[in-house]
Amino acid sequence: MMKIAVLAGDGIGPEIIAQAVRVLDTLKTDGLAIELEYGLIGGCAVDATGEPYPAATHQLASQADAVLLGAVGGPKYDALPRHQRPERGLLAIRKELNLFANLRPAILYPELANASSLKYDVVAGLDIMIVRELTGDIYFGEPRGIETRDGQRVGFNTMIYSESEIRRIAHVAFQAAAKRQGKLCSVDKMNVLECTQLWRDVVIEVAKEYPQVTLSHMLVDNAAMQLVRTPKQFDVIVTGNMFGDILSDEASMLTGSIGMLPSASLDENNKGLYEPIHGSAPDIAGKDLANPLATILSAAMMLRYTFNREEAAQRIENAVKKVLAAGYRTKDIDESGMKTVGTKAMGDAVLSAM
Amino acid sequence: MMKIAVLAGDGIGPEIIAQAVRVLDTLKTDGLAIELEYGLIGGCAVDATGEPYPAATHQLASQADAVLLGAVGGPKYDALPRHQRPERGLLAIRKELNLFANLRPAILYPELANASSLKYDVVAGLDIMIVRELTGDIYFGEPRGIETRDGQRVGFNTMIYSESEIRRIAHVAFQAAAKRQGKLCSVDKMNVLECTQLWRDVVIEVAKEYPQVTLSHMLVDNAAMQLVRTPKQFDVIVTGNMFGDILSDEASMLTGSIGMLPSASLDENNKGLYEPIHGSAPDIAGKDLANPLATILSAAMMLRYTFNREEAAQRIENAVKKVLAAGYRTKDIDESGMKTVGTKAMGDAVLSAM
Ligand SMILES: CC(C)[C@H](C(=O)O)[C@@H](O)C(=O)O
Ligand SMILES: CC(C)[C@H](C(=O)O)[C@@H](O)C(=O)O
Repeated sequence: MMKIAVLAGDGIGPEIIAQAVRVLDTLKTDGLAIELEYGLIGGCAVDATGEPYPAATHQLASQADAVLLGAVGGPKYDALPRHQRPERGLLAIRKELNLFANLRPAILYPELANASSLKYDVVAGLDIMIVRELTGDIYFGEPRGIETRDGQRVGFNTMIYSESEIRRIAHVAFQAAAKRQGKLCSVDKMNVLECTQLWRDVVIEVAKEYPQVTLSHMLVDNAAMQLVRTPKQFDVIVTGNMFGDILSDEASMLTGSIGMLPSASLDENNKGLYEPIHGSAPDIAGKDLANPLATILSAAMMLRYTFNREEAAQRIENAVKKVLAAGYRTKDIDESGMKTVGTKAMGDAVLSAM
Repeated sequence: MMKIAVLAGDGIGPEIIAQAVRVLDTLKTDGLAIELEYGLIGGCAVDATGEPYPAATHQLASQADAVLLGAVGGPKYDALPRHQRPERGLLAIRKELNLFANLRPAILYPELANASSLKYDVVAGLDIMIVRELTGDIYFGEPRGIETRDGQRVGFNTMIYSESEIRRIAHVAFQAAAKRQGKLCSVDKMNVLECTQLWRDVVIEVAKEYPQVTLSHMLVDNAAMQLVRTPKQFDVIVTGNMFGDILSDEASMLTGSIGMLPSASLDENNKGLYEPIHGSAPDIAGKDLANPLATILSAAMMLRYTFNREEAAQRIENAVKKVLAAGYRTKDIDESGMKTVGTKAMGDAVLSAM
């Protein structure tokens, strides 16, 4: 039995999750043993329980094999104190479930090449996998806070990595590269930060176990440039939580269609949380305008990484390619001459294509 | 008397500096009271003295009104211990001279629009000013290091800002915005980092003194996206040292011609260090191939910011525009149908245009 916890979250979360659930239901009807259970996270969880990651959700997620998440956050919650903000729910579930390996593919769909702000030749065929460490770094490092020192406020955080943390994410990245084009680029700022000097040292040590992968290193500022200049030079990029946050968003925007990009966050045993990389888009919530494809593709990633069901994953991915080829477009990826559809109609199209 | 310390540095440094010096010499001949003194920094300083920022250079730079710098670093120095690496020279001079305000314009020259990897409409007319704090943040924060804890290596650094550090860079940014389109975007990661929560709080406080400037805030991951998606939405961006390192390099690459971009790093009294944003390009050093325009434009920034000689600054900038319009191109910005020239010939062209 594949036990999946479904956390729709806020904004467009419930709408896009609904379409991904229909896809999973189809697989179920066709024989996969899928069981879905629903829980709260983010702003809606704060509304209901006062906490963005309630104990009940933690229990549900802990007992599930995988989590499918929509999105969290919205203007309604902006004024809440720090510990109640919706994104604390996201940080908490990552940390509590030990989901240290964040896989973020940046793929350009040929049909959507016009959506990119980059020139066609620069991005045509783009297929990068960013492997971002997700439970360490300055996101969780202590000490942290805002204090008064010598009569003035001082804000501080701690960037920190241990060699075991670096080693385990490096293994994930080398293995991903070995299954792809065999090229791994590790991004750090070793010329300034000791923390990332250790990062580089440990990645070089781990590389010995993967002679089939070509390892290179790049400073984060240069990586931010190279992603704009010649993004296709990259196959797999591995980096820490903070740099990964920035670079993976930059990389995703190269495709021009962040409504299309899924992500996986895995623990040591490939238990995972799957979510679209886009946010909760409160401005279009409830209007049947959101693009459900990133969430549907997140479900495909789940079948691949957690459940090892490559065939089912590809069935979904091929269905998405078919609907794009057939001209179906939600508003975010629309172009003249195409069939503009809403969230639900896009779900319908994927279901028929399956 | 305008006392300028000239630190050519490594790689292409001497060649590009030579052309900027010719430009300054021309202004001198035409009546400006300029005095140049030469010193060592980076790898060449290590070769000569064992230190990347020798005491003699510090004395020279301290006594000068402004510093013109080429570039530092090269493969020869990669194996040196941390404290001897060329870039330590750069970090040391910034810190010792208290050059906390790094101004990095990202301007697209209409003649060079093709060089950008972004679509013409996305970048045509691009003119962003990035104001990066340069003497604080995780670059200089303590504690820092690599230690063994519980039997394994741990690397750590400290991101830290005090309210006075934030306040003074905010003032620089608001003043820059007030002289431009009046739009300032402050970039932070307040949803995760307390340090940058303080950043946001203080920037909002300072904003009260600049009612003519419209302030907005953006999370760093979103900023990395928006720079790719719609860069022209920005006028002035202000951010910390680390995020500024990444975003300013990303922004510069939007123009496609980092051989064209100057920078200024200023203290409280507008004493400044001026340097091209590109590196020492060891692969083309000594071959008369490097583009001297970023360094020449850095000299123009020097006249503007440190010496308040707007007219002389514009004379240089207009000369650069003229040589571009006349079709002169070094290899990095070359296109078919243009006049390909070397470093020195590009300097000649600028001199005649002046
Ligand atoms: C919402 C925020 C805390 C989160 C992060 O910074 O990790 C988001 O930007 C992401 O990349 O998933
Ligand atoms: C060389 C390096 C230390 C430096 C920095 O990170 O500040 C460089 O990247 C820059 O932006 O001037």
